[in-house]
Amino acid sequence: MNKMQAVNLKDIQIQDPFWSKHIELVDKEIIPYQWEAMNDRVPGAEPSRCLENFKIAAGLKSGVFYGAVFQDTDIAKWLEAVGFSLINKRDEDLEQRADEVIELIGKAQQDDGYLDTYYIIQAKEKRWSNLCEGHELYIAGHMMEAAVAYYQGTGKKRFLEIVCKNADLICRTFGTSEGQIKGYPGHQEVEIGLIKLYHVTGERKYLDQAKYFIDARGVGENYFLKEMSDPDFQHFFPEFANYDPSYSQSHLPVREQTTAEGHAVRATYMYTAMAELAYEYQDEELLNACQTLWDNLVNKRMYLTGGIGSSGILERFTVDYDLPNDYCYCESCASIGLAMFGQRMAQITREGKYMDVVERALYNTILAGVALDGKSFFYVNPLEVWPDSCKERTSKEHVKPMRQKWFGVACCPPNIARTLASLGQYIYCVDSESIYVNLFISNKTKIRLENKEVGIELNTRFPKENSLQIAISNVPVKGVNLGIRIPDYAQDYQVTEEGKVVEVCKEKGYALLNLNADGVFDISFKAPARFIRSNVKVRANTGKVALVRGPQVYCLEEVDNGANLSALKVDTDSQIEEVPAREFGGSIELRCRGKRILEEAEELLYTTKPLQYKEVEIKAIPYSYWNNRGLGEMSVWLRR
Amino acid sequence: MNKMQAVNLKDIQIQDPFWSKHIELVDKEIIPYQWEAMNDRVPGAEPSRCLENFKIAAGLKSGVFYGAVFQDTDIAKWLEAVGFSLINKRDEDLEQRADEVIELIGKAQQDDGYLDTYYIIQAKEKRWSNLCEGHELYIAGHMMEAAVAYYQGTGKKRFLEIVCKNADLICRTFGTSEGQIKGYPGHQEVEIGLIKLYHVTGERKYLDQAKYFIDARGVGENYFLKEMSDPDFQHFFPEFANYDPSYSQSHLPVREQTTAEGHAVRATYMYTAMAELAYEYQDEELLNACQTLWDNLVNKRMYLTGGIGSSGILERFTVDYDLPNDYCYCESCASIGLAMFGQRMAQITREGKYMDVVERALYNTILAGVALDGKSFFYVNPLEVWPDSCKERTSKEHVKPMRQKWFGVACCPPNIARTLASLGQYIYCVDSESIYVNLFISNKTKIRLENKEVGIELNTRFPKENSLQIAISNVPVKGVNLGIRIPDYAQDYQVTEEGKVVEVCKEKGYALLNLNADGVFDISFKAPARFIRSNVKVRANTGKVALVRGPQVYCLEEVDNGANLSALKVDTDSQIEEVPAREFGGSIELRCRGKRILEEAEELLYTTKPLQYKEVEIKAIPYSYWNNRGLGEMSVWLRR
Repeated sequence: MNKMQAVNLKDIQIQDPFWSKHIELVDKEIIPYQWEAMNDRVPGAEPSRCLENFKIAAGLKSGVFYGAVFQDTDIAKWLEAVGFSLINKRDEDLEQRADEVIELIGKAQQDDGYLDTYYIIQAKEKRWSNLCEGHELYIAGHMMEAAVAYYQGTGKKRFLEIVCKNADLICRTFGTSEGQIKGYPGHQEVEIGLIKLYHVTGERKYLDQAKYFIDARGVGENYFLKEMSDPDFQHFFPEFANYDPSYSQSHLPVREQTTAEGHAVRATYMYTAMAELAYEYQDEELLNACQTLWDNLVNKRMYLTGGIGSSGILERFTVDYDLPNDYCYCESCASIGLAMFGQRMAQITREGKYMDVVERALYNTILAGVALDGKSFFYVNPLEVWPDSCKERTSKEHVKPMRQKWFGVACCPPNIARTLASLGQYIYCVDSESIYVNLFISNKTKIRLENKEVGIELNTRFPKENSLQIAISNVPVKGVNLGIRIPDYAQDYQVTEEGKVVEVCKEKGYALLNLNADGVFDISFKAPARFIRSNVKVRANTGKVALVRGPQVYCLEEVDNGANLSALKVDTDSQIEEVPAREFGGSIELRCRGKRILEEAEELLYTTKPLQYKEVEIKAIPYSYWNNRGLGEMSVWLRR
Repeated sequence: MNKMQAVNLKDIQIQDPFWSKHIELVDKEIIPYQWEAMNDRVPGAEPSRCLENFKIAAGLKSGVFYGAVFQDTDIAKWLEAVGFSLINKRDEDLEQRADEVIELIGKAQQDDGYLDTYYIIQAKEKRWSNLCEGHELYIAGHMMEAAVAYYQGTGKKRFLEIVCKNADLICRTFGTSEGQIKGYPGHQEVEIGLIKLYHVTGERKYLDQAKYFIDARGVGENYFLKEMSDPDFQHFFPEFANYDPSYSQSHLPVREQTTAEGHAVRATYMYTAMAELAYEYQDEELLNACQTLWDNLVNKRMYLTGGIGSSGILERFTVDYDLPNDYCYCESCASIGLAMFGQRMAQITREGKYMDVVERALYNTILAGVALDGKSFFYVNPLEVWPDSCKERTSKEHVKPMRQKWFGVACCPPNIARTLASLGQYIYCVDSESIYVNLFISNKTKIRLENKEVGIELNTRFPKENSLQIAISNVPVKGVNLGIRIPDYAQDYQVTEEGKVVEVCKEKGYALLNLNADGVFDISFKAPARFIRSNVKVRANTGKVALVRGPQVYCLEEVDNGANLSALKVDTDSQIEEVPAREFGGSIELRCRGKRILEEAEELLYTTKPLQYKEVEIKAIPYSYWNNRGLGEMSVWLRR
């Protein structure tokens, strides 16, 4: 099998009417805000103490460890976002600050390469004794990803040296040889980090180590249950008592897994690594497992918004078609993991269907995770919210009806930041003779094909307008295969050049053109707003429809439609009007006709009285922008 | 204010076509089964070790405490059920076994009256140090209720002596005087026990102590938060970290509480005691609080089935109109608490509306809690179950799609047993000149009015048939006020004597007759099956209806209607046919017309394709009998 690659982020400049305003927030708001948060200077926000822990571990201060056992990843994710940001734009102050943090990390690192402030400060002798919950390998993976991004952003190798020293320790420590620990991580992530480290250093052992972790997982006696059977074992998390191996996808060897199980972030990070390794080792069996898992995930366990993880308890998958809208989890990080997985699958298979899902996740759940002003974040992304009922210490306590400033477990905000800062990686897939355009985001890019730098300029107002222009220059003499994605929602898809229709070969979700010369292509399609329904087996959505336009899922908000959205019924025969919105940077709003049940004077809880309706206009906005106008009800699914 | 009383259970014999088969299970199945369970002799069931703990506490064995900190209540509830059972029917073997258990309890009791095996065995020095979670007063209350029932069933005083010695210690220990602990129970129940003990012993201090606990609750600094601020404090339950006082209704003085908050069982046990004390102390303010809480509970936070407690997490109330059907709690014990509260309110106010709710709870949630064979039990009583999705370690793990044999926390099975064994207490309310008939259950009763024993014979096939006959004999010369409840669902309610319509005064839900002579009255009404809808504010039920006939709520089961009940739509204009069922002891089944969405060949998760329907007959059975024919989907609410 072959695998296409993302374009080097250095070579791509995004200037897009839809995305740029969000991406700019990473530099303007999110990175500075996270810096303040990690330094515990945000009034009213939960303290992080992340830098403090590193200072204590480095012996620069005395004190005890504070926070979750995986607190170190706050800093790793911040540095990764900084790395991507510096690829896009130099910033000397920021770089200097990051360099200082990296030096601090280096000082905290132990002589043998070990790096985890919790264990360094609190329990040196217990390192690697609780792989299930200890998160040492999870932290290591995020550090590796951060170091790679920072190296790509600055060319500086110090952080790479630190993580390589750590990776070398991991390679020595874990494996099948005598004296090595035969375990694997409780939260997958180090596999992705090791693969990235291999790509940037060329050190094959890092790739082999990632393969070891994937191959060992779920084989034979469960490693975590074995750990827990030790009389000295202590849980970090009480909810891990009577541990269920499927929670961490260690219930079966990965190649035998056919359904998306357990914690959704763990799952998608693992699937991402599996896809990478399937290619690197030309492992068809592993690729088949990826395809089977993808199909189950996307066709039976994914929300319309690209959200995944139906259970609030343990943030996990449940069973096929179980997609409750109001008490689900749908963690922002899980949709990011889904996008990562989908991107790898698209790169290997060259099938557009994977990018349909990646686009769905990016335009909906991932973007909804951050406020329009970049100052607050969703961790959980429900499709239906009734704020009153999202009460502390009840079954919906995990559902926050307002974005939060920061979280004690702060994985989502920096994960969204790094995703936005590295959005360019999702736009193209390339190999030595092909350029595939996946996402319709305005940008200028240079792509090295053999010894020539092909130039691409993509201009579009997508998703507001369903057209784009691609100007390709410096096409090599031997030609180039240009693939342009045909999204699953596109109708009347057409490619023209100078006003003339270009004959294209439509294959696996792409329009394919063989170019031998420079050219300017106009692509247009129709993607009118539509009512979508769920499979009948999705019990939560029977009798309901959702409004979708292109990649964007729409929702109703209380501010536009009044309180109690469940009292609305939409007339699915009515015309859906597409109206430019005043808010949300000129996005399209949708309007259609419907009815609303009239409130009753008499407040009986149960009655036989008939309902009274009035005609109303229903107004829907993109799901990604909900809760930017204060607290209120929201719903994606609407009674028909 | 005045208060009517229940009839002495000794004086009432129930022989009823609907209830007797359930009540008989208490003697035949539940009491013997619970005995085996408490002795850890049920294969495959979670061990109880309850008797073992008492033996260790009594010094008859060595060992450590096993089980939940409130494990002692298993034995108390068993003895209470035995007490009620012995009132109904003598059983020497059972009585001898109970006597032995009581002796064992007496041996475990400490010299000063203290009685709680967890603390006696594990932590003598820590007694009363964790009122919030320690359950010592909760256990004491159940022991008192059991001792009173056992005394009434046998006339034996030994158990009463034990609990009085314990109650005396409690009276010395808790109060406002110097040296006394100014606390109150973390789980209300001792208040009910103390009041019952007062009624049977005449000891006023027990009543005063109950009043103290109610008056002290939620006043000033929260006692539980104070306990938890002690550096030596250790939680029994990790979920009690960052304790929320509303969980135990200690967030406000009880007289200032206006909404049903927190743990539903704790709440209803407290409200029951409040109602008793309102009467005993002629405390109008307390009665007003009871009425306000009742109205909120019943008109905004109660399921159609009489279930309460919307949140699976912490088994608690949430907010008005938040009544999700599939992940709710609706604990059997909470509906029993609701029935206890409603009975007291009916006794004080003489308003039938309270008994409407008591009847709803008894015929639906409470009865659903036990299988038709008496061998398995529901703890959680959802109104919609899709078994596949009730997966361990997810948001619906608390929902069991099958009744369970026994529970680690075994509160519900014995609570249902004592409720069935003492069902007679709910049938009548009496005072010196009035007899009110509340429930339509065939029985023969003797009621002492001043110096005369009035005889009542009630015969009915209710709820199958909506008629009853009441024969009253030995009416005293000064006459008697006979009140017969007019249920909220009754139409064309009519009382006749020898075929002639009797003029009755209809007042606050009762038909009132002033009798000066013996007589035989026939009461009839119509209560046809109807489609009921919820208030529009109940978002979970918008667009849905439920089938209700008399006090019985109906549900659809997969075995009758096929898998995926959400694919059904009922035609609410169709006739509801009432058909005698083959199963369920000749109950009425309901049938009506509807449509079912056809399954699709193509299994797209999201689509624009139109739905196809077929006409179907819908069959509904009483909710109380669901899951007596194997595993399958169930739903009370049905799309219209």
